[in-house]
Amino acid sequence: MILTVTLNTALDITYRVPRLTPHASHRVGEVTERPGGKGLNVARVLAALGRSVTVTGFAGGATGAALRAQLAEASRVRDELLDVAGPTRRTVAVVDERTGDTTQLNEPGPLISSAEWARFRTSYEELLDSADAVALCGSLPPGVPVGAYAQLVRAARAAQVPVLLDTSGEPLRRGIAARPDVVKPNADELAELTGSHEPLRATRDARRRGAHAVVASLGADGLLAATPDGAWQAAPPAPVRGNPTGAGDSAVAGLLAGLVDATPWPRRLTHAVALSAATVLAPVAGEFDAAAYEDFLAKVSVQERASAA
Amino acid sequence: MILTVTLNTALDITYRVPRLTPHASHRVGEVTERPGGKGLNVARVLAALGRSVTVTGFAGGATGAALRAQLAEASRVRDELLDVAGPTRRTVAVVDERTGDTTQLNEPGPLISSAEWARFRTSYEELLDSADAVALCGSLPPGVPVGAYAQLVRAARAAQVPVLLDTSGEPLRRGIAARPDVVKPNADELAELTGSHEPLRATRDARRRGAHAVVASLGADGLLAATPDGAWQAAPPAPVRGNPTGAGDSAVAGLLAGLVDATPWPRRLTHAVALSAATVLAPVAGEFDAAAYEDFLAKVSVQERASAA
Repeated sequence: MILTVTLNTALDITYRVPRLTPHASHRVGEVTERPGGKGLNVARVLAALGRSVTVTGFAGGATGAALRAQLAEASRVRDELLDVAGPTRRTVAVVDERTGDTTQLNEPGPLISSAEWARFRTSYEELLDSADAVALCGSLPPGVPVGAYAQLVRAARAAQVPVLLDTSGEPLRRGIAARPDVVKPNADELAELTGSHEPLRATRDARRRGAHAVVASLGADGLLAATPDGAWQAAPPAPVRGNPTGAGDSAVAGLLAGLVDATPWPRRLTHAVALSAATVLAPVAGEFDAAAYEDFLAKVSVQERASAA
Repeated sequence: MILTVTLNTALDITYRVPRLTPHASHRVGEVTERPGGKGLNVARVLAALGRSVTVTGFAGGATGAALRAQLAEASRVRDELLDVAGPTRRTVAVVDERTGDTTQLNEPGPLISSAEWARFRTSYEELLDSADAVALCGSLPPGVPVGAYAQLVRAARAAQVPVLLDTSGEPLRRGIAARPDVVKPNADELAELTGSHEPLRATRDARRRGAHAVVASLGADGLLAATPDGAWQAAPPAPVRGNPTGAGDSAVAGLLAGLVDATPWPRRLTHAVALSAATVLAPVAGEFDAAAYEDFLAKVSVQERASAA
């Protein structure tokens, strides 16, 4: 099975209002609620592709219970989330129906105790025994050490399980030094890590920091990969209009499937870009338009870039 | 015991953000969560005054479970809320720390089935058997008939239990025609009901529509009452600065206690105004500053107005 880790899961709530006016009172017309957090989105996409997938991380309180109930309903993902004392955070997206713009309010997440973190690492190492690959996704909740992903990368390498890291800031900086197989920063995360806004240079710089391969997600420009086998850029035939939330998570799902199957990089990137573009066409993160995915597979262009450093 | 009815209970969530910017993403610094809905606030104030109090209405889903757990923790209120299939609504108040202003997002509430509504009425009539007074508070959730409060007022009168109604719009218009003992509109609700913005005229007009007594809450101007015994205005010695949320609910708590004890109107209004003003000094609805309440009791002024119509 494929394992995804989401330490800071979230109950994602979306409110639609006719118009958002600061300091006014609003009756919310439509409320939707779904299990959130990058690793959960990755897992749902992998499950929809027919992969056996397990999720772990933390869930707690009434919001955690709601998240787990909805996860069980919505997908064939195996739930190995650990119960914690603090409540799972909510994220609230307020969609202004007049402009289509979204105002986002993100709670910080529960305070994880050191005992809970120790319990997680034990459970994680047990899950690695039956994992073909593992993805470590998203932000860290309060209380989890900033070097958490470095610890989890090292444990995966010790268990000989290929590991992909998708996070940002200091957790990325520390995690990449533990030599994960793949990191997948977006353009902002890559620039923050390397100080360079030139994607090819920054991608190669990130590789030198420890990652075996770096795949940068560049929005409408697709994916740019620096790998031991070479460097490639894969892009959809034209910019895809829709809801980009979760597009990066679907790219991670494609990269993980390719990692397990040891698919050659150009083909692996094609799948990841096609999944990502098909996700932009779906209304919510963690889902994709299956027909569009098949269609994009034939249309994604892959170009080799000057040989990797 | 005193019974309060809250058909559209809410889990009240407050987010503090450094500055609310539409269409941007915000990390919420501080999250607080508490049981909400007018009737629950009234009940908590009555419980703090040492009264035996029972709450009923609807609660459902993970939000309903969280609300009930917090209610049990926070107060000595007896919980007779009915479990329903739909989830209890959330309200989200986003406080801009720069200006202190609040942006409010209110979910509509669960859809109540006709079977759930019928079950409620049976349970309500049973609770009336041991009630000394009942308050009917707040908005109606979807699915509950607009004439709901008229039905509940008639049932209370049939059981010879004094009944106070605190709602707005069409549910108030229909409910008042069923002849409740007291209605407590605020200035906007009173103007909407009667078409008049002149408080004394509007209060008397509301009485003619069926209420035995009308007590209008006029913010800093206190309470204006039109009753069979006369008309009075009771006001705090000076405008009180603070958080006015829940001030009207505390006035209802004071009026209910006076209804049960058959306190003469001037004294009854004094208690209600003092409680209301002491609530403005407390940080959240459903609580009041006990020392300030005692202090206000000696300072509230009550003036008789020209004899009631």
